[in-house]
Amino acid sequence: MSGFDFKIKYNDKRSNARVGVIHTVHGDIQTPAFVPVGTQATVKSLDNQDLEKVGTQVFFINTYHVYLRPGLEVVKKFGGLHCFTGWNKPLMTDSAGFQIFSLGDFNRQRKLCLQGETLQVPLVKISDKGVIFRSHLDGSEHFFTPEKSIEAQMILGADIMIAFDECTFYPATYDYAKQAMLRTHEWASRCLTAARGKPNGQALYGVVQGGIFEDLRKQSAKYISSLPFEGIAIGGVSVGESKKEMRDVLDWVVPLLPAEKPRHLLGVGEIDDIFSLVERGIDSFDCVMPTRLGRMGQVLVRKVEDRGWKLDITKAMYASDKRPIDETCDCLVCKNYHRAYLHHLFRARELLAYRLATYHNLYFLEKLMQDIRQSIKEGRLAQLKKEWL
Amino acid sequence: MSGFDFKIKYNDKRSNARVGVIHTVHGDIQTPAFVPVGTQATVKSLDNQDLEKVGTQVFFINTYHVYLRPGLEVVKKFGGLHCFTGWNKPLMTDSAGFQIFSLGDFNRQRKLCLQGETLQVPLVKISDKGVIFRSHLDGSEHFFTPEKSIEAQMILGADIMIAFDECTFYPATYDYAKQAMLRTHEWASRCLTAARGKPNGQALYGVVQGGIFEDLRKQSAKYISSLPFEGIAIGGVSVGESKKEMRDVLDWVVPLLPAEKPRHLLGVGEIDDIFSLVERGIDSFDCVMPTRLGRMGQVLVRKVEDRGWKLDITKAMYASDKRPIDETCDCLVCKNYHRAYLHHLFRARELLAYRLATYHNLYFLEKLMQDIRQSIKEGRLAQLKKEWL
Repeated sequence: MSGFDFKIKYNDKRSNARVGVIHTVHGDIQTPAFVPVGTQATVKSLDNQDLEKVGTQVFFINTYHVYLRPGLEVVKKFGGLHCFTGWNKPLMTDSAGFQIFSLGDFNRQRKLCLQGETLQVPLVKISDKGVIFRSHLDGSEHFFTPEKSIEAQMILGADIMIAFDECTFYPATYDYAKQAMLRTHEWASRCLTAARGKPNGQALYGVVQGGIFEDLRKQSAKYISSLPFEGIAIGGVSVGESKKEMRDVLDWVVPLLPAEKPRHLLGVGEIDDIFSLVERGIDSFDCVMPTRLGRMGQVLVRKVEDRGWKLDITKAMYASDKRPIDETCDCLVCKNYHRAYLHHLFRARELLAYRLATYHNLYFLEKLMQDIRQSIKEGRLAQLKKEWL
Repeated sequence: MSGFDFKIKYNDKRSNARVGVIHTVHGDIQTPAFVPVGTQATVKSLDNQDLEKVGTQVFFINTYHVYLRPGLEVVKKFGGLHCFTGWNKPLMTDSAGFQIFSLGDFNRQRKLCLQGETLQVPLVKISDKGVIFRSHLDGSEHFFTPEKSIEAQMILGADIMIAFDECTFYPATYDYAKQAMLRTHEWASRCLTAARGKPNGQALYGVVQGGIFEDLRKQSAKYISSLPFEGIAIGGVSVGESKKEMRDVLDWVVPLLPAEKPRHLLGVGEIDDIFSLVERGIDSFDCVMPTRLGRMGQVLVRKVEDRGWKLDITKAMYASDKRPIDETCDCLVCKNYHRAYLHHLFRARELLAYRLATYHNLYFLEKLMQDIRQSIKEGRLAQLKKEWL
């Protein structure tokens, strides 16, 4: 197969939604696509067969985590993450930026400062050159640069890589958001230079930043669009903004992006967010929601009255419940297990609980994405949205 | 299908080993059979499809655990454990005796006494009538009798139930072992009376006790054999005796048991034990070994030099190992994952680690049991044993 490629198949007439196919050397991704997160090179509790069965097309691995453990040397011996994990379908990696900056969580630092505490050993030091950070595992010091991020991601060998950016945490002042955006732009060029030798099959997405400021977001959208990235990612909308602010950012940014390039939204994916981002023209998005919620016993269901799209299976009311998690779902869990059994497994903290809940949640979300793609093709996305929201 | 039934198909000419079929209303169990343990109504980390794929014919659920959580009332609403767990193949339950007596672990009590400590609140009080014990979950007090154990097991609805016995912990004095055996005999009759109304499909196994004393074991074997149980279990050989003592007990007991009834050995199943117990005429045995070891990162392999039948996948030497766990194994884990990936999952304490290791270990053991059954049919059990030990 040839290299990375994106084709749009249908454009929605009533919104900016579109259906397309991202072609990679490890297979196709039908878009709009949900991308589950497999932080440490595993989507927690599921094996590759489970992932195929729930309909996972691609998953996201955090460069920060696999860089620290098992380490690049190990993955290199396997020729990349595909061979190391045994997952032969598409993969994405991020730049490590988000995790590194999370260590220096500005909200937390600000709170500590407001409480009169001084940070004795900041976990993160940022300069134009790059970022010094300490491992959350053993405290060891590491230096990451745009070049090092790309070098790492080329070793990891995912089909889609993300440029190294400075993620603006919320709330950020205008000045700080601007500074971070400018640094992100500078680093974007350095990433492209570093990625010159990458194989044809590996795509690199640039990242749009700019906080919640319209002029910065537009400036960033234009600048990143002007560079020869294979795709565009939008960052910094998962770190505390309201849903309205996320929609605003997409309204400012997406119309300025080149139509022919795939667009990825980083770290967003609640059920209602999904409709918002799809109708604004996002082609893929990653989110820990369904997997993280699943491990907490929160399982996804069709909306029931005002209760949202999830129920807490650990509640006593489900102790003898003979129904499946969701009566409309035909996943392995809903076909084979009662709510009462899942409730018991969670109460007893049995390992199987986490897998069954995760499995259902991912299946549920993949099914929603299939329905969304189909509804766009048939010109009834708005109708589907109304049925869900 | 009709009720519980056992047929012997082949008797080994050179040992007491035999191949047979236990027929239950939930399906057949080819013997000699390994019975994995699903303590809290789940074989830890595996779902029912996994269990079928590894070749599990029947699994063991601990009455003590499900009695406390989710509780009999919940299971009753589902008509038993089969419906509650979604597992439609044969199941076994124990009497709750072993767990209750473990709470009063005499070794531990003896050690505390030797250290000069007095036990202020003994967790277990035994009388001829029954046993008072406290829940390990919330400290609540419960009273169990032979009648209550059978009543509970009839609600749980497993295909094979075990009579309520007093398990003799090791080392026990002759007098204590005798007293416990006599109580076990008395309780055996009460269990049979209590089980009069049980459905035809549910079998009740009596338990042979008697510690490591030849005359007591023989007396117990004869007495339990004289009662109208559907099968015979041998208890008290997993609580501290040496492997030689286990073999001695089997040598004393098994020849006195009625040939036509199935024989279950409670709580034994290391690889070398398996050959010992099979050639002494045991038809089934349960053991937590493969599942518990799996969760610790100990994975089963064909014997390598003097290293036994397991390797510790968490060791650094496996960090880049491209081999499957066992090169002769064709399980899903060995076909799809490298040792290095499993090592990484264990080091990162990822949920998937426990499932993959458990899956492999159970598959490995079920494969061994298939080979053992085949070897008995073909008159080459001794040869197979030599290849393994």
